[in-house]
Amino acid sequence: MSKITIKNVAEKAGVSVTSVSRVLNNRGYISDDLRSKVMEAIDELNYTPNEIARSFYKSETKSVALIVPTIHNPFFSELAFYIERELSKDGYHLYIGNSLNDSVNEREYLKMLKEQRVDGMIVGSHNIEMEEYDKITGNIVSVERKINDEIPMIESDNYLGGKLATEKLIQQGCRKIICISGSQTIDSPASNRVIAYSDVMQKNNLKEQIVEIPFAERADEKHRRVKEIFTSKIDFDGIFADDDILASYAINEAEKFNRKIPEDLKIIGFDGTNLMQDLFPNLVTVVQPIEKIAQKSVEVLLQLIKHEQVESLYTLPVKLNK
Amino acid sequence: MSKITIKNVAEKAGVSVTSVSRVLNNRGYISDDLRSKVMEAIDELNYTPNEIARSFYKSETKSVALIVPTIHNPFFSELAFYIERELSKDGYHLYIGNSLNDSVNEREYLKMLKEQRVDGMIVGSHNIEMEEYDKITGNIVSVERKINDEIPMIESDNYLGGKLATEKLIQQGCRKIICISGSQTIDSPASNRVIAYSDVMQKNNLKEQIVEIPFAERADEKHRRVKEIFTSKIDFDGIFADDDILASYAINEAEKFNRKIPEDLKIIGFDGTNLMQDLFPNLVTVVQPIEKIAQKSVEVLLQLIKHEQVESLYTLPVKLNK
Repeated sequence: MSKITIKNVAEKAGVSVTSVSRVLNNRGYISDDLRSKVMEAIDELNYTPNEIARSFYKSETKSVALIVPTIHNPFFSELAFYIERELSKDGYHLYIGNSLNDSVNEREYLKMLKEQRVDGMIVGSHNIEMEEYDKITGNIVSVERKINDEIPMIESDNYLGGKLATEKLIQQGCRKIICISGSQTIDSPASNRVIAYSDVMQKNNLKEQIVEIPFAERADEKHRRVKEIFTSKIDFDGIFADDDILASYAINEAEKFNRKIPEDLKIIGFDGTNLMQDLFPNLVTVVQPIEKIAQKSVEVLLQLIKHEQVESLYTLPVKLNK
Repeated sequence: MSKITIKNVAEKAGVSVTSVSRVLNNRGYISDDLRSKVMEAIDELNYTPNEIARSFYKSETKSVALIVPTIHNPFFSELAFYIERELSKDGYHLYIGNSLNDSVNEREYLKMLKEQRVDGMIVGSHNIEMEEYDKITGNIVSVERKINDEIPMIESDNYLGGKLATEKLIQQGCRKIICISGSQTIDSPASNRVIAYSDVMQKNNLKEQIVEIPFAERADEKHRRVKEIFTSKIDFDGIFADDDILASYAINEAEKFNRKIPEDLKIIGFDGTNLMQDLFPNLVTVVQPIEKIAQKSVEVLLQLIKHEQVESLYTLPVKLNK
């Protein structure tokens, strides 16, 4: 007997091929009656969907996964909020995965794409070697992480942000400016924040002082490292912190060490989430257009899903909030 | 003898194929009588559904959805973080939906459960009339939201939290204590925070002063309302804010109005997310066991998925952070 196909199953069950496909995919409303008819036919014919057929059935899941280091970081929770809102306008649902900066977790989420459990993936975190991504054929958009030339990236204009912040501090009279950096790796566009700081300092014949505090470090350890700056012998009148949480630690320590902001010390942060601006109304910060980043990520991902042409890089403008 | 199929089982049991399928899938109402007839027939025929058929019977998606008002609220982003971490240990993936306190959105997410796109749902938000949930047959666990008697709820001991906070303020010498409340509805267990405040105040012959600020209000409007307390003629020496964001607004305004904390004014918040404790190291707050709430929610949901017996209410202890 020739190979059993989905058509044979449909005939045997006395239903349409579409119905069989619905049962196979477990999609849409499936009555008990339909399910058992199809199961019976599959049983009797001992039908096994082949790989190609299977991938065809599964062609659309209307699901997208977002991978972030941790969703409880304000930047990523706000990004996730807007991404979910945008996707839902097109009837897509959003999976969220916390990679915890751990490549085992990240690999696990990438499997969702490989197994076609999702139509696409937005990656805001990565630890896995580039080759791992190179091997994956699927719709991926990256946010603020350079993965490879094939995967389109949405980023803020990080260099502009670092430039605006440093220039503003200098313009306000600061000469001894420390840059507290989340020690971004070279493939992270966020490293351009620090590069811009260095360029502006050099241009103004000012001495660079960069304190690196790894992003993946625990919160209390990060806070301790910021405190160390205040207890050290370093002399400073300005701080450019390349994320707002680090800036909030500096604000907190400045208070404890009786350094009045902005009179004795000026601090500028980076990210500008609604939450941080809301909790620290005096926070001066470089505002990333998080809502626009989310919209663009979704727009580009949906274009990829529809096999449309996309750019490889989208750089969105930033601005100081005050 | 040729391969035993579901049809043979149905014939032997003297029931319809649909009924056999229902028993195999554990779906819909199954009488004890039906179940035993089918089990007997399966036994006698030594029927084994083949692998592929079995995976359909199970109709397992290994997906769970979490519905929250907004994922960018620190409480919910931390809850989501832990829930995702717990689920991933059992190979489940997590969808996230922002209901935005809008019943249209919530209905949309409930459809995922109805359409069996997810194996279960954790609901941390609801606006839809109870009847809507009553109609849904699916695995639902609720967090801090009383939905109906059928749906198990995981909550913090909100009453204890309100009691601890108010008693602490009184013990520290406060006599004019304002309660700033997210004006929770009666079916929200969080309303017990305010009830406990009232009870403790009455017991101590102190005058209650409750300022309600709806949870769904915009952040800047909430902040303005907190500021109003400081500009009003109300005399107060203590504030119990029933969430930490409201407490942070009060801390912020106290500073502007030159009221020293804790000398001139004592403030206690509620929630105790890692983020808020991290950003405001001096914040005194009632700490909800968010990680434990997440673990319990996942544990109970997985029990429901496995058709195990669960309790209808789980109340987890809270404590003051200092």
